[in-house]
Amino acid sequence: MKSNNNLEDINGLDPENWEEMRELGHQMIDDMISFLKNIHLEPSWKEIPKDTKAYFKEDLPVEPQNSKKVYQDFKRYILPYHKGNIHPRFFAWVQGSGTLMGAYSEMLAAVMNPNVTIGEHAAMYVDEQVVKWCKQMLNYPNSSSGILLSGGSMANITGLTVARNAHSNLIREHGIQKNSKKLVVYCSEETHSCITKAAEIIGIGNKFVRKIKTNSEYEMDCDKLLEQLLLDIKEGLQPFCIVATTGTVNTGAIDPLEDIYNICKKYNLWLHIDGAYGALAKLDPNIAPKLKYIELADSVAFDLHKWLHVPYELGCLLVKDADTHRSTFAITPNYLLQTGRGLAGGLDAINNYGFELSRSFKALKVWMSLKETGIKKHAQLISKNNEQAKYLESKILKSNELEILAPVTMSIVCFRYFNKKLSMEKINKLNEEIIIQLQEKGIASPSSTILNDKYCIRVCIVNHKTKKEDLDFLISGVIQLGSEILKNNF
Amino acid sequence: MKSNNNLEDINGLDPENWEEMRELGHQMIDDMISFLKNIHLEPSWKEIPKDTKAYFKEDLPVEPQNSKKVYQDFKRYILPYHKGNIHPRFFAWVQGSGTLMGAYSEMLAAVMNPNVTIGEHAAMYVDEQVVKWCKQMLNYPNSSSGILLSGGSMANITGLTVARNAHSNLIREHGIQKNSKKLVVYCSEETHSCITKAAEIIGIGNKFVRKIKTNSEYEMDCDKLLEQLLLDIKEGLQPFCIVATTGTVNTGAIDPLEDIYNICKKYNLWLHIDGAYGALAKLDPNIAPKLKYIELADSVAFDLHKWLHVPYELGCLLVKDADTHRSTFAITPNYLLQTGRGLAGGLDAINNYGFELSRSFKALKVWMSLKETGIKKHAQLISKNNEQAKYLESKILKSNELEILAPVTMSIVCFRYFNKKLSMEKINKLNEEIIIQLQEKGIASPSSTILNDKYCIRVCIVNHKTKKEDLDFLISGVIQLGSEILKNNF
Ligand SMILES: Cc1ncc(COP(=O)(O)O)c(C=O)c1O
Ligand SMILES: Cc1ncc(COP(=O)(O)O)c(C=O)c1O
Repeated sequence: MKSNNNLEDINGLDPENWEEMRELGHQMIDDMISFLKNIHLEPSWKEIPKDTKAYFKEDLPVEPQNSKKVYQDFKRYILPYHKGNIHPRFFAWVQGSGTLMGAYSEMLAAVMNPNVTIGEHAAMYVDEQVVKWCKQMLNYPNSSSGILLSGGSMANITGLTVARNAHSNLIREHGIQKNSKKLVVYCSEETHSCITKAAEIIGIGNKFVRKIKTNSEYEMDCDKLLEQLLLDIKEGLQPFCIVATTGTVNTGAIDPLEDIYNICKKYNLWLHIDGAYGALAKLDPNIAPKLKYIELADSVAFDLHKWLHVPYELGCLLVKDADTHRSTFAITPNYLLQTGRGLAGGLDAINNYGFELSRSFKALKVWMSLKETGIKKHAQLISKNNEQAKYLESKILKSNELEILAPVTMSIVCFRYFNKKLSMEKINKLNEEIIIQLQEKGIASPSSTILNDKYCIRVCIVNHKTKKEDLDFLISGVIQLGSEILKNNF
Repeated sequence: MKSNNNLEDINGLDPENWEEMRELGHQMIDDMISFLKNIHLEPSWKEIPKDTKAYFKEDLPVEPQNSKKVYQDFKRYILPYHKGNIHPRFFAWVQGSGTLMGAYSEMLAAVMNPNVTIGEHAAMYVDEQVVKWCKQMLNYPNSSSGILLSGGSMANITGLTVARNAHSNLIREHGIQKNSKKLVVYCSEETHSCITKAAEIIGIGNKFVRKIKTNSEYEMDCDKLLEQLLLDIKEGLQPFCIVATTGTVNTGAIDPLEDIYNICKKYNLWLHIDGAYGALAKLDPNIAPKLKYIELADSVAFDLHKWLHVPYELGCLLVKDADTHRSTFAITPNYLLQTGRGLAGGLDAINNYGFELSRSFKALKVWMSLKETGIKKHAQLISKNNEQAKYLESKILKSNELEILAPVTMSIVCFRYFNKKLSMEKINKLNEEIIIQLQEKGIASPSSTILNDKYCIRVCIVNHKTKKEDLDFLISGVIQLGSEILKNNF
């Protein structure tokens, strides 16, 4: 064991050579610039070689390594095998494409390195301002409260927790262990799985999540909703919340908000909107009318790392009644007391509005990105993606080999390669193989889903880099692969 | 409304001028280097001017702004008013000091911009490797599972959710709405407020959180624990979990792990450890023996943005029984199906182990930082902080004006300025004023807490930049301010 003196002599983690670290920083900037600038020339996805995977098996590093070496290893083993959502032909899941300014902001935020929850420092004001901007983007009331979170899942679960507690002010104390009437939440069968997960986490149980059937457009069927609701009431259950989705993850469908809103009013239910993917489509004048009722919802969850292209991670929850939101979470222990002056002064602590006590300075990347771009341009880019989806749809409709599998509402297109002579099972297998080969060959990265037992090529265009040519390239890729695979005795 | 052609002509968010953005990046690197290099010469905290606060009232930006201008505004309005935990004399709350390499990594991660949950890409392997390293740091079994999260709060609530569901495999389906026996969780009255919050969120209710009294060392009193446990069982309640804290937020106390472990074994309870602050003190040979039983706990929550100095945010949950962990959260909807090959192949999806679907590439900053520093040096720095706390304690014990208010176990020191002639109330007010003035004058940033109705100056040394001189400076500041304030007819 070392004596006191020895330990005190050990330097902290500041660079031993600042100049070297400055050079390394410049090198990184240069590399990242050329990486992003040329990415459209690269394949949309690359397989990870075996020895690279083996490299990630190394144990916890004991001794220090030169910073340059560490960065070289990053460049060699990690950077080339990115996920692809920074590529113009990435159409998988719902993922934004990021921006350079967003990445720069992450570095600046990490240099300042605040825990943005409590205390008098600039990051608290930036966070507050960005929450205000989030309200303004959706034309949600200024008197509402809001919190920046890691994403749609956390925004939805936080929103459902508020909805649950809004139902009775005994719940914080007693939990829901003493409920005589069991709480029930409603959503459609196309609702994202995070809603079921949320209900499980907050103790409701998935048995009490009613997944209402959808119509042929994949929108919640409000007759069925009402039917179930009345049945549950009759059976002595306690409905407390309806979750409407604006932009389902499978097909981009928008639940009928006005009807759902009216049912909520009539039966005194909390209206929560899952707009993780689609709430920001309110900025597209063609979609906006369908999303007007977002403004009247009790709470709205949406993502900024999706259609606003802020780097991961960034979601937001807005709650109309700020008091209800705060009284779900606020606790002030002795070690977090606020003062009128000094470092422990300032704005209301943010952990009063959510699960987390430690929160990074995520607000900065939104702040810098929105200033750099302006919301007007974001609105245009969202409209552009929606138009591109229509363009893709029209190409598919014109083609003999392809079949559309769901209506195109926003920027998701579900289709498949089709051939009447093949069995359902074969067609499903064929489309799965097409998707994998599109990826393996670096042509494009759509993802898959299953609709009415049909395996779909699912193209989600939440991508500021995509051009029409990229969609043409995708379509010709699908057609070519489809016929090639069939030819090879598939 | 624009026609199709117009929208297609609108560029994405790539820089219009890459060269300008390259220069801006270099500028940022240079500025951040000199900012961090010289921060010890600056006051530990600065008040935010009124006009700066007014500036943050601006509405959502509509039009784009020049990137350089946006950055200038960051430098003018935000950077100077950092929270201070990057300063050698920051001792408030429990916050790490960050590193330059950590900040660089955040930029690299955001350039790659993956959602690290699903899919075959390098970030998934880095995440897996970092989780393994987390196990290795605590000597926790390799067969356990783990997940990187935003912080200790999320790690604790995720852990308690697993503990709750481990109790009965009916809970995911039925929630806890049908419980005949009400679930009860145990912790000490010194336990962090996030445990109560967790119990509220997952539907247990704070009424069923038993806050067991502590002994004079602020450690959980196991006689009292057993007494309460037996009483609850007698009354027909269902104990399911004990939360032991290794390093309480107030004083750094360590609950008696061996005794608690034995009680858990005997009564078949889940042992969860909140090591948000202190689990990593296992790396200090002087503390390690007290923390041995972490290795036997059912789950452990701890933070890397605290004593490992990874930039915000980064916490980790480890769970001994990987199956129990996974079966609490795993859901696989159609749009997230994994395949054997291609982009949708690869490792088990990470959302099977927690609340979140979208997750940033937080693992990279741990990966690069640990490679750069090596765990050996981290161990020394943790020991150094613990020794510094002992040094501070000895200075306080030697002083006539100061009084120690809690035993010093790790790196937290609670004390106050004391004067026998003053009333309790006056002394409390005096110490509050001392803390505020220490901050306002930029001398040092301790925080406060209250122990046995005594207002404490709470010094938490989780800081790789702190030197003994900084502690000397703090102490002379406290003594000088105390006597000055008293002189001025306080
Ligand atoms: C409709 C919908 N809801 C919720 C989510 C989950 O959001 P996140 O991935 O940000 O957690 C998604 C993600 O794609 C989504 O599309
Ligand atoms: C003992 C303890 N538990 C939990 C937490 C909460 O951790 P976090 O702030 O990372 O959410 C803290 C934070 O200081 C802590 O000290």
